[in-house]
Amino acid sequence: MLESLREQVLEANLEIVRRGLVLYTFGNASGIDREQGLVAIKPSGVPYESMKPSDMVLTDLDGKIVEGSLRPSSDLATHLFLYREFPTIGGVVHTHSEFATAWAQAGRSIPSFGTTHADYFYGPVPVTDELNAEEIGGDYVLNTGVAIARRFREQNLDPDAVPAVLVAGHAPFAWGKTPAAAAYHAVVLEAVARMAFYTVTLNAEGAGISQALQDRHYFRKHGAKATYGQ
Amino acid sequence: MLESLREQVLEANLEIVRRGLVLYTFGNASGIDREQGLVAIKPSGVPYESMKPSDMVLTDLDGKIVEGSLRPSSDLATHLFLYREFPTIGGVVHTHSEFATAWAQAGRSIPSFGTTHADYFYGPVPVTDELNAEEIGGDYVLNTGVAIARRFREQNLDPDAVPAVLVAGHAPFAWGKTPAAAAYHAVVLEAVARMAFYTVTLNAEGAGISQALQDRHYFRKHGAKATYGQ
Amino acid sequence: MLESLREQVLEANLEIVRRGLVLYTFGNASGIDREQGLVAIKPSGVPYESMKPSDMVLTDLDGKIVEGSLRPSSDLATHLFLYREFPTIGGVVHTHSEFATAWAQAGRSIPSFGTTHADYFYGPVPVTDELNAEEIGGDYVLNTGVAIARRFREQNLDPDAVPAVLVAGHAPFAWGKTPAAAAYHAVVLEAVARMAFYTVTLNAEGAGISQALQDRHYFRKHGAKATYGQ
Amino acid sequence: MLESLREQVLEANLEIVRRGLVLYTFGNASGIDREQGLVAIKPSGVPYESMKPSDMVLTDLDGKIVEGSLRPSSDLATHLFLYREFPTIGGVVHTHSEFATAWAQAGRSIPSFGTTHADYFYGPVPVTDELNAEEIGGDYVLNTGVAIARRFREQNLDPDAVPAVLVAGHAPFAWGKTPAAAAYHAVVLEAVARMAFYTVTLNAEGAGISQALQDRHYFRKHGAKATYGQ
Repeated sequence: MLESLREQVLEANLEIVRRGLVLYTFGNASGIDREQGLVAIKPSGVPYESMKPSDMVLTDLDGKIVEGSLRPSSDLATHLFLYREFPTIGGVVHTHSEFATAWAQAGRSIPSFGTTHADYFYGPVPVTDELNAEEIGGDYVLNTGVAIARRFREQNLDPDAVPAVLVAGHAPFAWGKTPAAAAYHAVVLEAVARMAFYTVTLNAEGAGISQALQDRHYFRKHGAKATYGQ
Repeated sequence: MLESLREQVLEANLEIVRRGLVLYTFGNASGIDREQGLVAIKPSGVPYESMKPSDMVLTDLDGKIVEGSLRPSSDLATHLFLYREFPTIGGVVHTHSEFATAWAQAGRSIPSFGTTHADYFYGPVPVTDELNAEEIGGDYVLNTGVAIARRFREQNLDPDAVPAVLVAGHAPFAWGKTPAAAAYHAVVLEAVARMAFYTVTLNAEGAGISQALQDRHYFRKHGAKATYGQ
Repeated sequence: MLESLREQVLEANLEIVRRGLVLYTFGNASGIDREQGLVAIKPSGVPYESMKPSDMVLTDLDGKIVEGSLRPSSDLATHLFLYREFPTIGGVVHTHSEFATAWAQAGRSIPSFGTTHADYFYGPVPVTDELNAEEIGGDYVLNTGVAIARRFREQNLDPDAVPAVLVAGHAPFAWGKTPAAAAYHAVVLEAVARMAFYTVTLNAEGAGISQALQDRHYFRKHGAKATYGQ
Repeated sequence: MLESLREQVLEANLEIVRRGLVLYTFGNASGIDREQGLVAIKPSGVPYESMKPSDMVLTDLDGKIVEGSLRPSSDLATHLFLYREFPTIGGVVHTHSEFATAWAQAGRSIPSFGTTHADYFYGPVPVTDELNAEEIGGDYVLNTGVAIARRFREQNLDPDAVPAVLVAGHAPFAWGKTPAAAAYHAVVLEAVARMAFYTVTLNAEGAGISQALQDRHYFRKHGAKATYGQ
């Protein structure tokens, strides 16, 4: 079971590389076994080409290393916080993919400009507040997760319906039921961010879809009445 | 004959993948056998890598499945409407290709800015009105086709001369005499949309070609006096 | 000798494909044997993948086909006019490469914004006037060449020092001492056009290099005092 | 030892090609053996595909060729000046990578817009002043280095903490402890420049990170308290 988790996490890490979301060793994916309360995550600063399932580091939800000889990703504390805060998710992916990162650097949430967005994200992909000096000087990586959770609580967002966020001045996090779903959402987010960039350049004011179209597309792919796929 | 149709439809689906118009399972292509009144279309949500001709779903023009064990593309009703409305077309392609989708999301038609455009599209590539809540809440996929047809009727456009459209807040549809021609138009549309994006950034007001140049280029490649090719 | 010319012309056609300047059958390259007064040019609308040296069409400077069973590129008359007008050039390349075409569609010449430009183009890459209805309705392809030559004469430009032009509302032409040099200039032009696009977005007014820097870089690579290369 | 230096320098030259920073023969990398006072640098205008370690040209810090039958890169004098001025660096890379070059052409330094930047560059990547006619007319390549050093001295910048610069109207230089580190910084600089371009388009005024976040990220990867990697 943990062997399968390690393989899924490795595969999610490789998928974001294959899709062009990763430069060098940037980015990391993790997955959780909820029953055992164990998280598998990419090791820090190891090249993707040579990574094996056994390189994935196993920790508990407090970050104690349970298995693995390598140091875990330096973003571990954010991943763990998200698993504790969002009990329904099974995988987390962090990248510095270029267009999503640009929106994060600009401090702007990504509006729902069309059905590609609406198919996967129910409403805008939010951006956190900037972390203040205290949060940065303190437990910074943990506080990144805190800022994400705060944004979701403030806007009453459902992490299953909005499976991604932009951390202001930093980059996106995405998640999903599984590590594969988290990677998939990270890839779609980058495409949506790219098209949204072009869209605001073409129409700075007027773009955006109706609530009716948002609903129609989102619920075509999600929930009890979904009709997409086999 | 239907075997050949299935192969042509599969090939059109693969062409839009090869040309970079498709992310994951987004996008779909279909073709029609006008004599038999049968349409072959990509199945819904199936990975392109493993698709076979026999996976293409055969339906009649009312959407009744005639052959095939998979569920057809969720956009089937739009394809069928276009075949009923535009009697000269033999293939339809729908993608979320990034620049064409950005123009659709911005709610802007793509002006004829140069001869690349004029070679394939006689005048602007139009954008539909946004669908209203009633149209979205009703037979949404069908109504997408209705909105396309309405735009063409209102502007008195010839679908053979303007073989593509942008659905507002959604993405493009393209068509042609065959599935291959529909895919070709979808690919050219994306290139034209990309260059038009750069053009309006460089010259927000003044760009656009004369009617004389539009005519010269379009009729160099189309109609009785065409001189292009072998 | 003509065999070698055909091979050089084929190779120039393939080079612009390899470098991403060509979609489908767009674009064409030619070369001239000045002694014999014969031009070899790509056939019209033939896929690049299967092209052989023997497919290149041989014509004299008036466009009379001397050898070859295929129809020559529909832009032949522009190529021939350039060979007649610019006696020092040995190859011509026409593409619809995306950024150079965007500048052409915007009706803007490409300013010399940096040393990459200055290394290959001595001053701005000019844009022609739009052709008027008479020129378009008459011998259009020839008149495209006429418009190019007019711009060079009006601005007293040396085609050896500025080996490319933008045809307004259309796309670029590039040339050089050989077909390979023409292709090289077409490729560099696209890179220069792309960087110039980003540059004007970052600095709409203030960009541009001094005459001293233009001179320094251009003459580092060209003329009697060139020091670049082996 | 010199054999290893030549191999490292070749590898750095190939890395910038693999990462898409180089068109044709543009760009060059060098490395220094501080003990022997010898620099290995790419030869001028030689295609990358066929380059061998033995093609790297060895010179002393005054540019006297010590070994090698080819002419060294035409930018040699800038490299040598940087080695003399910045005693801690071991490799220098020069490219015309597209986004970094666009910032250089626009005459703008690249602000620290996010943690990707902050991880590698402590503060903005500066842009030099334009060289004046005298500097260009004189020992131009050397004076490019002089302009870089002047900017670093004026702004009291540490070349180890800001391992890159934009030369106004020209393109970037990057450096590092080794030729590999210099190439790595050139690649990251291009990614940072690209994302910064998108960021200013999305938010012309308000983007930029706090000093606290800059510090946190930079010192996570550099200095005595670094925690990133194995």
